Amino acid sequence: MREYFANVPKIKYEGKDSKNPLAFKYYNPDEVVGGKTMKEHLRFTLSYWHTLTGAGSDPFGVGTMLRPWDCAEDEMELAKMRMEANFELMDKLGIEYFAFHDRDIAPEGKTLADTNEKLDEIVAYCKELMQKHGKKLLWGTANMFGNPRFVHGAATTCNADVFAYAAAQTKKAMDVTKELGGENYVFWGGREGYETLLNTDLGLEQDNLARFFQMAVDYAKKIGFTGQFLIEPKPKEPTKHQYDFDVATVLGFLRKYNLEKYFKMNIEANHATLAQHTFQHEVAVARVNGVLGSLDVNQGDPNLGWDTDQFPTNIYDATMVMYEVLKNGGIAPGGLNFDAKTRRASFEPEDLFLSYIAGMDTMAKGLRVAYSLLDDAVLENNTSERYKTFSEGIGKDIVEGKVDFESLEKYALENSVISNKSGRQEYLESVVNQYIFND
Amino acid sequence: MREYFANVPKIKYEGKDSKNPLAFKYYNPDEVVGGKTMKEHLRFTLSYWHTLTGAGSDPFGVGTMLRPWDCAEDEMELAKMRMEANFELMDKLGIEYFAFHDRDIAPEGKTLADTNEKLDEIVAYCKELMQKHGKKLLWGTANMFGNPRFVHGAATTCNADVFAYAAAQTKKAMDVTKELGGENYVFWGGREGYETLLNTDLGLEQDNLARFFQMAVDYAKKIGFTGQFLIEPKPKEPTKHQYDFDVATVLGFLRKYNLEKYFKMNIEANHATLAQHTFQHEVAVARVNGVLGSLDVNQGDPNLGWDTDQFPTNIYDATMVMYEVLKNGGIAPGGLNFDAKTRRASFEPEDLFLSYIAGMDTMAKGLRVAYSLLDDAVLENNTSERYKTFSEGIGKDIVEGKVDFESLEKYALENSVISNKSGRQEYLESVVNQYIFND
Amino acid sequence: MREYFANVPKIKYEGKDSKNPLAFKYYNPDEVVGGKTMKEHLRFTLSYWHTLTGAGSDPFGVGTMLRPWDCAEDEMELAKMRMEANFELMDKLGIEYFAFHDRDIAPEGKTLADTNEKLDEIVAYCKELMQKHGKKLLWGTANMFGNPRFVHGAATTCNADVFAYAAAQTKKAMDVTKELGGENYVFWGGREGYETLLNTDLGLEQDNLARFFQMAVDYAKKIGFTGQFLIEPKPKEPTKHQYDFDVATVLGFLRKYNLEKYFKMNIEANHATLAQHTFQHEVAVARVNGVLGSLDVNQGDPNLGWDTDQFPTNIYDATMVMYEVLKNGGIAPGGLNFDAKTRRASFEPEDLFLSYIAGMDTMAKGLRVAYSLLDDAVLENNTSERYKTFSEGIGKDIVEGKVDFESLEKYALENSVISNKSGRQEYLESVVNQYIFND
Amino acid sequence: MREYFANVPKIKYEGKDSKNPLAFKYYNPDEVVGGKTMKEHLRFTLSYWHTLTGAGSDPFGVGTMLRPWDCAEDEMELAKMRMEANFELMDKLGIEYFAFHDRDIAPEGKTLADTNEKLDEIVAYCKELMQKHGKKLLWGTANMFGNPRFVHGAATTCNADVFAYAAAQTKKAMDVTKELGGENYVFWGGREGYETLLNTDLGLEQDNLARFFQMAVDYAKKIGFTGQFLIEPKPKEPTKHQYDFDVATVLGFLRKYNLEKYFKMNIEANHATLAQHTFQHEVAVARVNGVLGSLDVNQGDPNLGWDTDQFPTNIYDATMVMYEVLKNGGIAPGGLNFDAKTRRASFEPEDLFLSYIAGMDTMAKGLRVAYSLLDDAVLENNTSERYKTFSEGIGKDIVEGKVDFESLEKYALENSVISNKSGRQEYLESVVNQYIFND
Repeated sequence: MREYFANVPKIKYEGKDSKNPLAFKYYNPDEVVGGKTMKEHLRFTLSYWHTLTGAGSDPFGVGTMLRPWDCAEDEMELAKMRMEANFELMDKLGIEYFAFHDRDIAPEGKTLADTNEKLDEIVAYCKELMQKHGKKLLWGTANMFGNPRFVHGAATTCNADVFAYAAAQTKKAMDVTKELGGENYVFWGGREGYETLLNTDLGLEQDNLARFFQMAVDYAKKIGFTGQFLIEPKPKEPTKHQYDFDVATVLGFLRKYNLEKYFKMNIEANHATLAQHTFQHEVAVARVNGVLGSLDVNQGDPNLGWDTDQFPTNIYDATMVMYEVLKNGGIAPGGLNFDAKTRRASFEPEDLFLSYIAGMDTMAKGLRVAYSLLDDAVLENNTSERYKTFSEGIGKDIVEGKVDFESLEKYALENSVISNKSGRQEYLESVVNQYIFND
Repeated sequence: MREYFANVPKIKYEGKDSKNPLAFKYYNPDEVVGGKTMKEHLRFTLSYWHTLTGAGSDPFGVGTMLRPWDCAEDEMELAKMRMEANFELMDKLGIEYFAFHDRDIAPEGKTLADTNEKLDEIVAYCKELMQKHGKKLLWGTANMFGNPRFVHGAATTCNADVFAYAAAQTKKAMDVTKELGGENYVFWGGREGYETLLNTDLGLEQDNLARFFQMAVDYAKKIGFTGQFLIEPKPKEPTKHQYDFDVATVLGFLRKYNLEKYFKMNIEANHATLAQHTFQHEVAVARVNGVLGSLDVNQGDPNLGWDTDQFPTNIYDATMVMYEVLKNGGIAPGGLNFDAKTRRASFEPEDLFLSYIAGMDTMAKGLRVAYSLLDDAVLENNTSERYKTFSEGIGKDIVEGKVDFESLEKYALENSVISNKSGRQEYLESVVNQYIFND
Repeated sequence: MREYFANVPKIKYEGKDSKNPLAFKYYNPDEVVGGKTMKEHLRFTLSYWHTLTGAGSDPFGVGTMLRPWDCAEDEMELAKMRMEANFELMDKLGIEYFAFHDRDIAPEGKTLADTNEKLDEIVAYCKELMQKHGKKLLWGTANMFGNPRFVHGAATTCNADVFAYAAAQTKKAMDVTKELGGENYVFWGGREGYETLLNTDLGLEQDNLARFFQMAVDYAKKIGFTGQFLIEPKPKEPTKHQYDFDVATVLGFLRKYNLEKYFKMNIEANHATLAQHTFQHEVAVARVNGVLGSLDVNQGDPNLGWDTDQFPTNIYDATMVMYEVLKNGGIAPGGLNFDAKTRRASFEPEDLFLSYIAGMDTMAKGLRVAYSLLDDAVLENNTSERYKTFSEGIGKDIVEGKVDFESLEKYALENSVISNKSGRQEYLESVVNQYIFND
Repeated sequence: MREYFANVPKIKYEGKDSKNPLAFKYYNPDEVVGGKTMKEHLRFTLSYWHTLTGAGSDPFGVGTMLRPWDCAEDEMELAKMRMEANFELMDKLGIEYFAFHDRDIAPEGKTLADTNEKLDEIVAYCKELMQKHGKKLLWGTANMFGNPRFVHGAATTCNADVFAYAAAQTKKAMDVTKELGGENYVFWGGREGYETLLNTDLGLEQDNLARFFQMAVDYAKKIGFTGQFLIEPKPKEPTKHQYDFDVATVLGFLRKYNLEKYFKMNIEANHATLAQHTFQHEVAVARVNGVLGSLDVNQGDPNLGWDTDQFPTNIYDATMVMYEVLKNGGIAPGGLNFDAKTRRASFEPEDLFLSYIAGMDTMAKGLRVAYSLLDDAVLENNTSERYKTFSEGIGKDIVEGKVDFESLEKYALENSVISNKSGRQEYLESVVNQYIFND
């Protein structure tokens, strides 16, 4: 097998004082944090599309990325070179999982049958390499947004032929995911939304989306695919208004159509911020509702209004998200997928490594800080104290459903003084800083 | 009874060419549009807080409004003068409904009992004036955000005493609303949300909110209040993140707690835009889900990030929202409440009339345009044609649940050419313009 | 010459009641508004890139547009077919001007010399067709953002070779613009900005940009190019932070480097809104500072954070921008360039016509309404009255520079009562509505 | 003198491992960083309005703050109690500077003369306490936004009487600032902007603003006030569009009216983010243009659209802003003013201390990290290397003005290969993280 990044050695943990750009400073895979290794906690995942397929184009310019596989002579050779490079990258970065869309790994053919055939060929090669390298598939998915046929949506298209095509493509992607032992299957409805209500039947489109999900559930059962189903919320882009706006919206949708027991959430940081939420908010809402499935760890730019998919380097987000993950009892069978691309100006092959290192180190540091915060129960104790009136007296009665408006009115009329306490936000922020700075 | 706006006569419809600022140009109450009068369609409602109580303060300056009741000598006289002025305004503007929070109409006393007593006194006076003037209450609600006791929320507070107080206050507000024949009761959770997740128990807070709503449902049943319950979504302000973010979020919440059959939505334009939705989007989502209850017609400023509550003067929003209302079969028992305040710089008493006229004319014009669009079925026919593949062949099978991934794959493999048609957005926008310009 | 849109006839004005989608309802080229024809006022311009070159791709999908020139067999044939179609479109739409970037009209070659040769060949063909069809070039410009060489900027690159290349490219584009009688030359610094301050020398980059502009001024003088120089502000996209953020920023820049007398502004609606301004704001700031040069009429979506470049169909923006243009004494030698693309879902050839019609009708209607507003002086009289204290007494002294803090203090100490008047915003909005509805 | 915070001792530096909430962990006033003490570098300043006057109201609720001076029996006693508490707070926090608006420290009277008299009384008391406590005034300013007379602006009002009043008020505030030895004087034009262009004369308003600034310059000269004049940019709030939008806008304005040599900038973090800039961006633009005057250190919330004025606790902003300050050679005679208020829910007196500690520790840590980054020249060396083509060959000629478009074209035509290098953004972000984590 070819070596694609001959100049880059296997990335090792050298500790916090290392000056070696090609070394981990904080991510130490075998370091134990609260009874599990960092590797077990973090379940890092390489995103095939950004890492292997992405070229660095943007709406005003073509691709810039310099890649060792640019020399490929045809589409299938290119697909194989990328697949080989995928495993070299994973090996060198010490990453155990990867994730892909069907069209990331193999090109489209002239017909759906051709396309499936090409896909099968690459999947077979992928399976062989997975075994050889000891790597696993976190999730598979179907790209139902890139091809012009999906211009009006896939499961929410106005064209029944397109719905059928999307069903066939999803079926195949599920087959392939099962074949490769994928632990999850993701649904991201990039074009499931609308451009203008002037021409849109919102009700029919959402009903059809529910029908599509139900068929996926049925098909999984039929083929014995036991991986976790994940929906990935995003409020907009490319579509003006996407139906899976955020975690709360998806929960409402699933509950309407009695689908809530079959799906969890794949939450992406930058999708959260596009919806005006923090990443932690989305993860917390999912956790509290029992649907925290997996994470796309990246970050956006608060001064830009689109999905920048940057590698996560912000320690605050890393800390608070890992805090939620720890409270959730871990993220498995999901993982931390770097749905992130090197900046268009970071176009050299080495930037791939430097970016993954930046992201992995940040998440590892966040894990450590989060663990300390939880272990010391510094926030938890404060919160328990804050809500303690609900574990005694009238508060306990409220929680246990023993009161009604009349009994509460009686209580309130007799309760002459209400005394609140400070929420201490600034102090709590300084505590988090201290844990970050002193870790 | 005192006259407060002696310089302003009863506002009459003078038609589109009138140069009289104090006349309607488009709102002609008795004009019949599709079998109902404009007045029946529009159910205009005066918002007590902005119109009678609001003073024009903002975060950097005190109130500016010049009001005929500024001379009141004590709080109760002030409350009565405002109530009288309320009916004068409604009479002169030809508005049939009003809406209020408990604290808009009467001041707080030293204790809850005192407060209730003051409220009762004003309610009695209000009832007398309602009968005299032939006016109705669209909805009542409780202000559970202004007083410092609600600093951490009302139904989602961390303090059980505050929860009890909120229950007592809501009970009283429901009593009062029933007493005055209110056709709806509104819940807006201004402080039901959080400032920071560092000190917040998201799960408990939302469970408590559901408990609160359930108690309200139970109490309504007990006292025989048959008005419609409405939840008013808003994503933020004053709280950083409010639990009733938007219609979809509230639907998810209600379904989780089996409350969906008891609540509809009171949708506000400016709350929609703060959530990055169009007003029409929120109304359409509610309509499709059968929960379109009532409307707060106002407008925001897309270049500002807070709730500006401007009077609605944008014909596009007015048209498309009335379009949804007409498709919904009307808005009753809800109405079109002007949750709008005159700009801080529009501080003269006359501005109250000029602003209501601006808003009422805009909504009336929007009604007419929307009716024409629907009557000609110009958008409806286009949409039917666009989705027609779902009313025949494979599309019909999809909708009727007769297919699965396997049969669809079979169909897709055999279906060699997929042909989409243009969505025609620009053309449809020009059609709407033509209906507006030519009405 | 080939005919590309054989199904579409020349678009005619059929008046406001026409049901013919392929007819103007409001744009009547020879209709006289205030002494000039609509055509003279509006100076409509076809944007070559969106209309002829754009394919409908977005960050998540490839192009969708169906174009009659898709069958071209090589790049130069494609370039010629597009150029022919350009004139057919202009003829059929009755548009007199077009505008282009160098790379829109001709492909890049292997070297700069090759590229220039290809460009010359197309320019010669373009010139021939311009004469044949009687069309004019509003402006030319150089695309210095699409090619990967501009990844770090053009005039603000960190690489001197790229700066030199950009200079050479601009020189050629100026030559070509002069050759074709272009009435303006535009500078849009798509990549003149930065991605991160961690690696950016802000001072050097801006100094270099000024050097570049000065060289352009010098070169224009040398070759006798007397067209107007225009800078097009945009706050972001593709770059994170662009140096020409908005009109006010560019004015500050030009004044710093003593360049202000050589440049006016090409203002784009969607760029204004990305900077959190209204289109009218940017146009008014330019007008007041004497730098209103030309307009890119399009519109954005307030719920989306990127440049959607939609065809302008909002009558409010159209009216208020034409109001500023009329107050400016017209827009010539600039024009109204439709820097707008049909939606990705409006992919049929006919959509090009429907979209231009939508935009042209909207701007024509806006012109009429704006003219009536100005002719009746309805806003002007209100404004004069509002500021009249500055045309008499102490206000006149202030404006004429006759007072200082001490004399004003003396005046203020003696002036016991200050009386302000309402700004009447809502009333003025209703007046604008009346002019729109009744036109 | 009364003691107001008897439960709070003088705050001491206890080092990074201290668990004492009422201690500094990172701010060690006498610690030397690069030849100057932390105290000298940071020039911390207490903001009088948020700290002493602010009550915690927001647009939906009244004040919540519990303050030891709430018991004051009249306005003047209240003013004196606050002034005493100001010095106790500064003493206990070890802060050397404070800053105020005229109306923060003394109430308005019935006439301007009365008001000035009250102000004089408090100023005399303030001066006495300053001497006693050894404290200094960083800057004074005039509040020309709170009173209804400024509803249409102060220097940009439509009412000449208001302009005169503003002049008189500013004159007095300058007198007072000089009297107290203020090192700067700030202009923040909270209401200098517009609500709607329908009633605004943009040109006259901006001309008047320039006239006002010129009069201030003249008056300073006359009275021998040698403090620095500072303009504080803000894009919006309370006004829709403020004239001092951001640093670049103000620079353009000053240059237009030949005022640039008299004013520097007071840059506020949250104002930067409201303008869609980073704090560092605004500071860097000011530094590069030689107008970095002083800083309002606070932070906003990227998910909220208004000025939240939170205490700064984000280490990234703190680091990068101190980086710019160090590159600027320090911030004196400006300072780091905490234009920040405790959250509405942080209403206990102790929160004032906890919040200042959080902010001071964050800025101190940021100073240390920034100093290390600069001392190691880790970013500077990278940037020099990145732009080195401009210090040799053709790049040097460009910078030195030795080339023109023709010579650059000649160079470009001969220069066959252009080679760019990666911008390394992700790596640089990881370097900053390493400096933060390892400090």
